[in-house]
Amino acid sequence: MWPNRRLLDLIGIELPIIQAPMAGSNGSAMAIAVSEAGGLGSLPCAILDAAKVRAEIGIIRQRTTKPINVNFFCHTPAKPDPERDAAWKAKLKGYYTELGLDASVTMPAISLAPFDDALCNIVEDLKPEVVSFHFGLPAQALLSRVKASGCLVLSSATTVEEARWLEGKGCDAIVAQGYEAGGHRGMFLTDNIATQAGTFALVPQVVDAVKVPVVAAGGIADGRGIAAAFALGAAGTQIGTAYLFTPESLITDLHRAELRAARDDRTALTNVFTGRPARSLMNRIMHEIGPMSEAAPSFPTAGGALAPLKKKAEAAGVSDFSSLWAGQAASLGSEIGTGDLTRQLAEEAGQRLKALASPS
Amino acid sequence: MWPNRRLLDLIGIELPIIQAPMAGSNGSAMAIAVSEAGGLGSLPCAILDAAKVRAEIGIIRQRTTKPINVNFFCHTPAKPDPERDAAWKAKLKGYYTELGLDASVTMPAISLAPFDDALCNIVEDLKPEVVSFHFGLPAQALLSRVKASGCLVLSSATTVEEARWLEGKGCDAIVAQGYEAGGHRGMFLTDNIATQAGTFALVPQVVDAVKVPVVAAGGIADGRGIAAAFALGAAGTQIGTAYLFTPESLITDLHRAELRAARDDRTALTNVFTGRPARSLMNRIMHEIGPMSEAAPSFPTAGGALAPLKKKAEAAGVSDFSSLWAGQAASLGSEIGTGDLTRQLAEEAGQRLKALASPS
Repeated sequence: MWPNRRLLDLIGIELPIIQAPMAGSNGSAMAIAVSEAGGLGSLPCAILDAAKVRAEIGIIRQRTTKPINVNFFCHTPAKPDPERDAAWKAKLKGYYTELGLDASVTMPAISLAPFDDALCNIVEDLKPEVVSFHFGLPAQALLSRVKASGCLVLSSATTVEEARWLEGKGCDAIVAQGYEAGGHRGMFLTDNIATQAGTFALVPQVVDAVKVPVVAAGGIADGRGIAAAFALGAAGTQIGTAYLFTPESLITDLHRAELRAARDDRTALTNVFTGRPARSLMNRIMHEIGPMSEAAPSFPTAGGALAPLKKKAEAAGVSDFSSLWAGQAASLGSEIGTGDLTRQLAEEAGQRLKALASPS
Repeated sequence: MWPNRRLLDLIGIELPIIQAPMAGSNGSAMAIAVSEAGGLGSLPCAILDAAKVRAEIGIIRQRTTKPINVNFFCHTPAKPDPERDAAWKAKLKGYYTELGLDASVTMPAISLAPFDDALCNIVEDLKPEVVSFHFGLPAQALLSRVKASGCLVLSSATTVEEARWLEGKGCDAIVAQGYEAGGHRGMFLTDNIATQAGTFALVPQVVDAVKVPVVAAGGIADGRGIAAAFALGAAGTQIGTAYLFTPESLITDLHRAELRAARDDRTALTNVFTGRPARSLMNRIMHEIGPMSEAAPSFPTAGGALAPLKKKAEAAGVSDFSSLWAGQAASLGSEIGTGDLTRQLAEEAGQRLKALASPS
């Protein structure tokens, strides 16, 4: 029933849907439900330590025998920059005063380990069918070990240039991440958000540029989007925001409430939460010091100084300082279970594809 | 053969393609060729005086009996702001010096008449089948006269809110203009480009919000895009950049050369050329004082101070100060005639739609 089976056959899945790995917003439960439904479930490991990564993959392996994806960040860690951190803290000082917080205390340091030897050991032991990366690819030695373990390697491209680079390094499929996508942009050969292309323009240009299967991502939240992705030449889709509405999603009630009220024109790319451009629903901090700020410290340290504000505000039911990751099609989401959502997306897409060939 | 005939039946055309009206870049010749091929040709009137509008429509009527679209801007003219103009001129002074131009001379004033009584008289006389507007709609009295003449009315929405507003005012169809689109964004209820949605996210949300047919625009340059637009629920497409490559396009050789070298990541929204956000291929002035500048005077006056720079530079074969309008899918364009392009786009789309329903 699918017009292009390259991704399905490559990975060994039934439905052309990769659940986007969403660090902090999903764990093993969502991944299991997607894989069991026939899509590709993803476990985001960016904010987990090695022991937790091992435990979560273990749980997934107990609950499904279907292919899974394990996702890692492979950013270059930020160099310490106390001057920049101090300036950022000073910029936020008024908020500390407003919330009755002591701005003179040491801020929690945010450090995210990129994919490394310890994580690679786990991959070699547990051999997830797919390992995907965000922000490019790890160093060649690590990448070779992942591939030698028999794992398929995926990564995201936000430009044709990035797609060609990933293919050259041996990626087995490429996620073309359009401007609409929620969360962090995977950009790694450019930091210019002004020239990032929308899904509609990016996908066919990436398809024309590379030989490996292309997965469309960004703005896809229903069967129409999956059908459109195939029309543009993609071999499948990666869907994130739609899964944030499910009971398996780990987002806060505040985030959930904001998602329910989402509109097409209420998200923006912002670097205030982590230092890297990521799409969030607009909130107070984005309005007042962003959405993009030249003062934000490098990824991922920007979030350190926001953490106490976020904690205090959230305790009072206020999301002024919280990242509210969402793509531009969030309003298309609905609250059903992860497995049902996966099957429903595929069912809608199949009907849509059939209808497209039938004259009205 | 088309999965949705609402736009075709509404306008009385055979192919689901509206050639985007591109002020300064196309005249009657392109419109005639598109309409004769079965699409909807468009005459952009924004920079023409009333006599020229009448003459151009006259030429079109002599050469085709098929439906045509006549397009007008309906912006609020900028209030004179000598202080802002002077600051803008000062910002550009270094370029005047570099090019050996006298920065103390009076800059050419740029004034674009929005749709008015004189233009409405022409519409009433010549009754184009479709009248489309950019930047919202004209005042109710003018709009009522256009509708009373039997013309269908179209306008562009960049958000769901704008689409609902246009439908409420009586638009017969709505162009959902995604972020990818080249040239001026039609935005009129917001001036925030950070929250503008890509075509992939915008189209289905607009389709769900209004009852009138929706035309997808932005990033569509081949048959894949037309098929994808139908998948998302659109009843047709509006295509601009692909037509800039044709011999009927009025763009400069410099613009044409830049288009040939276009890439997915080489355009940005900029206000430096006119004061309003519009998508252009990146060039020197966009890099150095943009792409968005808070100093740019209101639409359309920003272009006045750039005009002498543009003229001098272009004479030397340099496009540093020229608007190079293009959408994000410009690299998909190829240089064939307007009529052939129209037929080829439709043919490709038809094949694509058929292929989508056939399992691979």
